[in-house]
Amino acid sequence: MRTLQVELGDRSYPIYIGSGLLNQIGDLSIKHGISVQSTHLIVTDEQVASHYLKKVENLMAEAGFKTVSHVVPSGESSKSLAVFEQVMTTAIQGKLDRSSAVFALGGGVVGDLAGFVAATYMRGVTFVQIPTTILAHDSSVGGKVAVNHPLAKNMIGAFHQPVMVLYDVDTLSTLPARDVSAGFSEMVKHGLILDKTFAYWCLEHASDLLALDKEKLAYGLERGCAIKAEVVSHDEREGGLRAILNLGHTIGHAIEAVGGYGRFLHGEAISIGMVGSAMLAESLGRGETLLHETKKMLRALNLPVVLPSDVSVDEIMDAMQHDKKFTEGRMVFIVPDEIGKVSIVKDVPVEAVRSVVEKLKEEEQQ
Amino acid sequence: MRTLQVELGDRSYPIYIGSGLLNQIGDLSIKHGISVQSTHLIVTDEQVASHYLKKVENLMAEAGFKTVSHVVPSGESSKSLAVFEQVMTTAIQGKLDRSSAVFALGGGVVGDLAGFVAATYMRGVTFVQIPTTILAHDSSVGGKVAVNHPLAKNMIGAFHQPVMVLYDVDTLSTLPARDVSAGFSEMVKHGLILDKTFAYWCLEHASDLLALDKEKLAYGLERGCAIKAEVVSHDEREGGLRAILNLGHTIGHAIEAVGGYGRFLHGEAISIGMVGSAMLAESLGRGETLLHETKKMLRALNLPVVLPSDVSVDEIMDAMQHDKKFTEGRMVFIVPDEIGKVSIVKDVPVEAVRSVVEKLKEEEQQ
Repeated sequence: MRTLQVELGDRSYPIYIGSGLLNQIGDLSIKHGISVQSTHLIVTDEQVASHYLKKVENLMAEAGFKTVSHVVPSGESSKSLAVFEQVMTTAIQGKLDRSSAVFALGGGVVGDLAGFVAATYMRGVTFVQIPTTILAHDSSVGGKVAVNHPLAKNMIGAFHQPVMVLYDVDTLSTLPARDVSAGFSEMVKHGLILDKTFAYWCLEHASDLLALDKEKLAYGLERGCAIKAEVVSHDEREGGLRAILNLGHTIGHAIEAVGGYGRFLHGEAISIGMVGSAMLAESLGRGETLLHETKKMLRALNLPVVLPSDVSVDEIMDAMQHDKKFTEGRMVFIVPDEIGKVSIVKDVPVEAVRSVVEKLKEEEQQ
Repeated sequence: MRTLQVELGDRSYPIYIGSGLLNQIGDLSIKHGISVQSTHLIVTDEQVASHYLKKVENLMAEAGFKTVSHVVPSGESSKSLAVFEQVMTTAIQGKLDRSSAVFALGGGVVGDLAGFVAATYMRGVTFVQIPTTILAHDSSVGGKVAVNHPLAKNMIGAFHQPVMVLYDVDTLSTLPARDVSAGFSEMVKHGLILDKTFAYWCLEHASDLLALDKEKLAYGLERGCAIKAEVVSHDEREGGLRAILNLGHTIGHAIEAVGGYGRFLHGEAISIGMVGSAMLAESLGRGETLLHETKKMLRALNLPVVLPSDVSVDEIMDAMQHDKKFTEGRMVFIVPDEIGKVSIVKDVPVEAVRSVVEKLKEEEQQ
């Protein structure tokens, strides 16, 4: 078992990564002070529930914990206020109290939704994350939780740190291939923003990663989490540095919104967004090989690097207006300087962004 | 102008209390760093909007601020997730960004709703409170914000401190008599829990207060806010001491819930709840005159001290099960020791509470 500590003062917490970890959920819950008096809530989605819910419920019961479960439909559509209210209903009917905990068993959608429930149920209760996707290595660090508004993604949320993250790499074996690839998008991103060596490690071991080699996977997840934890430790509430984690996200979120949060997986949209950021860097005269190298890394992990031709540039531009990175009328972008290094560029002209989006639609030549 | 500082470390903020203060909203907003670049949101209700919305909008515009407004129906029913989502829609369509502020212009309902919007819009933006009711002297201190779940009050919320509270006592002149009385309920409570002198001051000046004498009113609001601020400074997130502010609230919230959040005003329900707490104290052998004195104070301010005979004891008891003070299966009550002093009593037998609720329904004899 690898243990990575996320340093956030009195909100610090460990991420446990390893094979067979799910079996330790009872012991780890006791270790982290989860109450055996109160009832706790397990939130998961249909897909994950079919594989692991019964197991987690039984393990918790064996360890002496009372739980109720709420299963939401799989997919981004569950990050709505309507589903949020249904989960709250289960929590209230289950008589959860202030000493209760909410367990997120699933990927980013479940983590964000359950985390926002934990952040706001009775003004905040304990939160535990049990990621079951590769992508969730990203969302399980940093405490950002949210639901979507019909007009924009992650618009309603909070900062709420878990007390522990339990990452059992065995649960990743049941992921569909498309989710596996999409999951590596944020991992590559962590290399691209801060760690050139790790970015090229991802490229070198792309086929091992896609084959879910447990050793490589555990290392990649730990390194990805560690880079994110380092950034978040310096800037918990996104006052400055933390913004670099948004590489590819401004365009990526717009792609997701225009696709109705169903057509593109988050990791796929971010992949295209990161290509866009590299194009923006090129147009600003930074690094000649940046775009080529970025595409190579993403393609090695079977990630998309072009925007399908039927996607409307106008719709993408319009969706971007609602982005949280759009502060005080200026457009803020994270732009790579080179592989492993980015900077925050304010006052990016909207026209430069439009050119990039148009270019993302062109048939790739390289 | 009286200024009271609520001490909460880097979340400290001032409460300005006085006559004609609304006219200073522009200057005070500039003083507190509200951005002239971003658009801000004013949330208010129909009743308050008819008196003050145009004025506040104009004053803000004159000071160079851009605002959008959202008017919700008056009353507790606006503290719903559905109305919350509508306010969020206005915020997004108004292109509020991370440097925006949400202004709550109104009473407790507007403050709680707008505060929860401020706490969660883009994971938290600046919050400004402009209370227009007496009751709001209570909710404007301490940063508790929330909406209701159909099954229980204030179940979905956060702790989110305002950057300033602007309390113009002139706005209280348009309050209906019933709201005036209900507003003094929390003021008396602040005396009952911590300040015997202030409790008797409220009794002595009850008729001046009901007549909205500006000097007496400003003193009463300042003292009420100060007592609450003192408690909150010691325990921002209700780990211990802060619980004493819940005097009368366990029974009171149940009364509101059973009345469908429309029949009883919050202050009225709390008034009956505080009589219940005094009865509980009596049954525990505390203070002989406590119940008599408590009733005298509340009646002097035209507050109800009995539960109407058609209210079901079973329904009240059932509603109490969902209360946040019901931790790990035990029933926690704030019970007065004497006027100006209370203690937190855990493990109160449910049957003792039922007896109190039954007694609250009996025709008063004294």
